[in-house]
Amino acid sequence: MKCVRFIEHGGEKAHIGFIDGNVVRVVYGTLETYWRVTDETYPLDKVQLLAPCVPRQIICAGFNYPDDFKKFGYKDLAQPDHPALFCKAAHTIIGTDANIIYPKQTKKLVYEAELGVVIKKQMKNVTPEEVKDYVLGYTCANDVTARDLQTTDYQWLRSKSFDTFCPLGPWIETDLDASDLLIRSYLNGELKQEGRTSEMHYNPYELLSFISQNMTLDAGDIVLTGTPINDGEMHVGDTIEVEIEGIGRIKNYVVAEKE
Amino acid sequence: MKCVRFIEHGGEKAHIGFIDGNVVRVVYGTLETYWRVTDETYPLDKVQLLAPCVPRQIICAGFNYPDDFKKFGYKDLAQPDHPALFCKAAHTIIGTDANIIYPKQTKKLVYEAELGVVIKKQMKNVTPEEVKDYVLGYTCANDVTARDLQTTDYQWLRSKSFDTFCPLGPWIETDLDASDLLIRSYLNGELKQEGRTSEMHYNPYELLSFISQNMTLDAGDIVLTGTPINDGEMHVGDTIEVEIEGIGRIKNYVVAEKE
Repeated sequence: MKCVRFIEHGGEKAHIGFIDGNVVRVVYGTLETYWRVTDETYPLDKVQLLAPCVPRQIICAGFNYPDDFKKFGYKDLAQPDHPALFCKAAHTIIGTDANIIYPKQTKKLVYEAELGVVIKKQMKNVTPEEVKDYVLGYTCANDVTARDLQTTDYQWLRSKSFDTFCPLGPWIETDLDASDLLIRSYLNGELKQEGRTSEMHYNPYELLSFISQNMTLDAGDIVLTGTPINDGEMHVGDTIEVEIEGIGRIKNYVVAEKE
Repeated sequence: MKCVRFIEHGGEKAHIGFIDGNVVRVVYGTLETYWRVTDETYPLDKVQLLAPCVPRQIICAGFNYPDDFKKFGYKDLAQPDHPALFCKAAHTIIGTDANIIYPKQTKKLVYEAELGVVIKKQMKNVTPEEVKDYVLGYTCANDVTARDLQTTDYQWLRSKSFDTFCPLGPWIETDLDASDLLIRSYLNGELKQEGRTSEMHYNPYELLSFISQNMTLDAGDIVLTGTPINDGEMHVGDTIEVEIEGIGRIKNYVVAEKE
């Protein structure tokens, strides 16, 4: 099932629902906890998809694909022996077709295509084998980063947390085996990143289990699972897409910050 | 005004309200947005105070007091020329008198007494001069940290984010000039840290303005403003207190993690 959040074109109220052929069917409740399917539908071409969830927390893994670690050029550090965790701030989240704002603080804005895992219910101290019971589904994510600030700041929070720095969508695919999916990014239509989720140092089940050993995650929280090599730079006017096999594709536009 | 969240002893429902002499007076709405003062009161000695706010985001400043930077022993790094930001996860928050759980993952658990600033309304690109219009008030905070993991992990998120790692309280003091307050911590009743908020590299107004240039903060979010020198280690059985002039004191107990 493809779970969505959306507004009708010209409308204001955000609905949740799921894709049902050529329409979006409205659901009452929350995506994570309560579903009452209604007869209310909207033609798919008459709605604007929003980010499919509004997580309280966006927890991310760094260095989770081969060679991703090398791009930082650290001389005295080694691949970590456990998942490296950081997070992004709340107002980073946007949906497909929305604009990524290029902040004036950075001179090097980069895309990072990632598989996002959406949590279904509160999880703490969950084993890798149990994790799938806590996963609502999967979505495409772009861990947009101000790379220059990431390398000069002591911590990554700021460089990862400017508003609009976390495109998600187009929906949450609930029926998916995430163990070996093709993940790609395209800049202005040109293929840039290409990897498989099977290449992760820590697969989604190991990663979520590790996080849950260290902190409690709640329904609706999202975990970004790291990016394959060949992430790269974006400029104002660019279009960036993240595509994941079995899910779909998000497209976002880089725009200048308003004065 | 001293804004509180609380439950009646033996009760389950969390109320918000304020201290009114020897009673707590209940308020309907949220602390940040809407107040309807009621006639419902509880004797102060019949309630358990909770963390005074439930922030979506806990944004923190590192290296914000003289010499705090030196404790890490970094040889090749310098005091940053802007606030160093990181964050803590959602389930870190506890109130006064609650237990801090010593996680089995760490061998060095430390306290860090800090002034917490609670946001009143959404803020983005706010100047230092405007910040006070966006501040609901101030509270005592303890930025509990697994120091060994902080120094070996690539990012600070995990070492700062175990459940119970952010005691807050006992209330939010709304009528306070935070520019020069004495801040202290006591371990088992013995004075450990002592500093003044006037010693901060970036005072609360400069700090919140900087954060708001980089990300949007929402009503109820909290900013921890850094810790004075002489933070130190805690062990199971210890009592740790954070006291701030003009606000009050929080007391928490270090307990072992249950198997």
